[in-house]
Amino acid sequence: MSVPGFELLATDGAARRGRLSTPHGDVETPAFMPVGTQGTVKSLTPADLRESGAQIVLANTYHLFLRPGHELVSALGGLHRFMAWDGPILTDSGGFQVFSLAKLRKLSEEGASFRSPIDGSPRMLTPELSIAIQQALGSDVVMPLDECLAYPATREATEASLALTLRWAARCRTAHRNGSKPGTALFGIVQGGVYEDLRRRAVDDTVALGLEGYAIGGMAVGEPKSALLDLTELVAGLLPRDRPRYLMGVGKPEDLVEAVSRGVDMFDCVLPTRNARNGQAFTPDGPITIKQARYTRDPEPLSSECPCYACRNFSRAYLRHLFMAEELLAYRLLSLHNVTFFFGLVAAMREAIAAGAFQALKTRFFARYGV
Amino acid sequence: MSVPGFELLATDGAARRGRLSTPHGDVETPAFMPVGTQGTVKSLTPADLRESGAQIVLANTYHLFLRPGHELVSALGGLHRFMAWDGPILTDSGGFQVFSLAKLRKLSEEGASFRSPIDGSPRMLTPELSIAIQQALGSDVVMPLDECLAYPATREATEASLALTLRWAARCRTAHRNGSKPGTALFGIVQGGVYEDLRRRAVDDTVALGLEGYAIGGMAVGEPKSALLDLTELVAGLLPRDRPRYLMGVGKPEDLVEAVSRGVDMFDCVLPTRNARNGQAFTPDGPITIKQARYTRDPEPLSSECPCYACRNFSRAYLRHLFMAEELLAYRLLSLHNVTFFFGLVAAMREAIAAGAFQALKTRFFARYGV
Repeated sequence: MSVPGFELLATDGAARRGRLSTPHGDVETPAFMPVGTQGTVKSLTPADLRESGAQIVLANTYHLFLRPGHELVSALGGLHRFMAWDGPILTDSGGFQVFSLAKLRKLSEEGASFRSPIDGSPRMLTPELSIAIQQALGSDVVMPLDECLAYPATREATEASLALTLRWAARCRTAHRNGSKPGTALFGIVQGGVYEDLRRRAVDDTVALGLEGYAIGGMAVGEPKSALLDLTELVAGLLPRDRPRYLMGVGKPEDLVEAVSRGVDMFDCVLPTRNARNGQAFTPDGPITIKQARYTRDPEPLSSECPCYACRNFSRAYLRHLFMAEELLAYRLLSLHNVTFFFGLVAAMREAIAAGAFQALKTRFFARYGV
Repeated sequence: MSVPGFELLATDGAARRGRLSTPHGDVETPAFMPVGTQGTVKSLTPADLRESGAQIVLANTYHLFLRPGHELVSALGGLHRFMAWDGPILTDSGGFQVFSLAKLRKLSEEGASFRSPIDGSPRMLTPELSIAIQQALGSDVVMPLDECLAYPATREATEASLALTLRWAARCRTAHRNGSKPGTALFGIVQGGVYEDLRRRAVDDTVALGLEGYAIGGMAVGEPKSALLDLTELVAGLLPRDRPRYLMGVGKPEDLVEAVSRGVDMFDCVLPTRNARNGQAFTPDGPITIKQARYTRDPEPLSSECPCYACRNFSRAYLRHLFMAEELLAYRLLSLHNVTFFFGLVAAMREAIAAGAFQALKTRFFARYGV
């Protein structure tokens, strides 16, 4: 199979065990991608990421475009060398951040104009520029610029937005085909909000572009959990079997398990690192909030089953002390633990699917995790 | 030689190469102690410290007394287990912090009363309590409570303060002899401000207590650099040859070299970690300020001779980007680099003294470092 390729190794119900090939190595799926927003997964080194089980890192085009700038990263040898991560990198398009973070945003057929929150400079992100930035960064998996609607949105607004996203996707495809290194993948993004028929149309029209993988976008933006799961099941069921499926911005451990059971292969989320900095640690028995007084004298590790450095060396009491004292090491150790938990969870799912035991794992997970 | 012991292995001029034995292992001197104020050397793990060349860590009695409390640390097996550092730990007495950080401080013969900045609670630190806290923490090298005068201080105030410090030292000695584990050292602290005759008296009266090592206190508190060096030379020259000499709170790389050339064996300072968090990196060619625009596109590491993880993997341009973006990883990587630099500097001094080449090292250091 040519690079970039996706090999479906096993299925168990709708759950899939696969392998995505990229110029910087393979990604075993289901896979979770930690988010390295500004060219760093916050507080962690590439060595930490490797040791904790990361296979691929997501980087944010919007942030790197604004600072330090993709030309600078490119001049220094690309993002892999810049951040010293030699594994695969998926870059988002910048669209989601323009719609959620940028000021004075203005949308046109051409693209999205906005002002940089860093220096106030006027900026314009077009489908072509988004691809050019991702190419300059040296991304292995490129995402097309799409419009991300807030939830809730009317059917009319969603339909117009989907049409624009599809026109932009075609422009992104052209830009990608003309300028990307061999083996670099471009994924499509299926939008369509909470409207089933729009999602169906989005799948048809996006798949018609013949891309290397397909993402489910516009989820985890405030819609009910049932809508997330139902729409994921619907879209995953319509997507081609021989391409990877990526549920963007998801999510909680329980969401990962539910989505894998519906046929999703890839995930990204800031949850493990962001929540770590807020004092939340994920465990097989559910998340714990380390600042709670109950952990003041707790000699146990965050999780006795966890292989991470934090769990091998430190008590909850110590981690709570660090957190209460606002010590930088608290954020680092909790981040390391949380990404280790997420990578362990997807690794367990991979193993279960290969063994035809996914349903048992899912049942066991929920019995303990207690959602 | 019994534990705690100090073995003088070699001398070169006034510079000394020695070995301090503690219940948690040996410390090769000259040695630099990183400061683990709240039970953590900020942003670094014990594994980082080991890898960067740390032999002994300093912990602050004042901070750990207030949070999480020494009883809690003791109940969890002591500070070594709490912070997962199995090497030697030196604890200060808490005195310096009471005099520099605490509010509503009131001094009496009995001790120093103050209010906790954390919860406003009234506290009283006596010589006996300081020793009891350090014993509860499981310190390997215990420091006696002393009064730390601000600079400048009158001769009269300095003399009265010295007398109090000496009375407290005797009380600390009694408390230490009555309650410390075998092998635990108690050092004396030589005060006396900038007055030579008071420093001489302080040496005589402190050494008369027959302690396991001697610190030079009340330095680096604002006095001129010449006074620091002259008084260090004076006091080091008077202290017993067969005991380690510790210059408290010092200092800059150039201060370490100057003080070793005057017979000092041990140092501690927050400089490498605090300045890292302010963007300063130490190199053989002098410190650099990573946020400067000149490093924007600099592909070189902080120091091409440095063996640390940051220098092996990252450019100045990347580290500058992290720092400008206020990424936690910036503080961690600069901290790791800076402690590596300090440990490398004392290691080079140890080697030079053993080889009878200290003066050549000192000349070379200053020619490059450019102070």
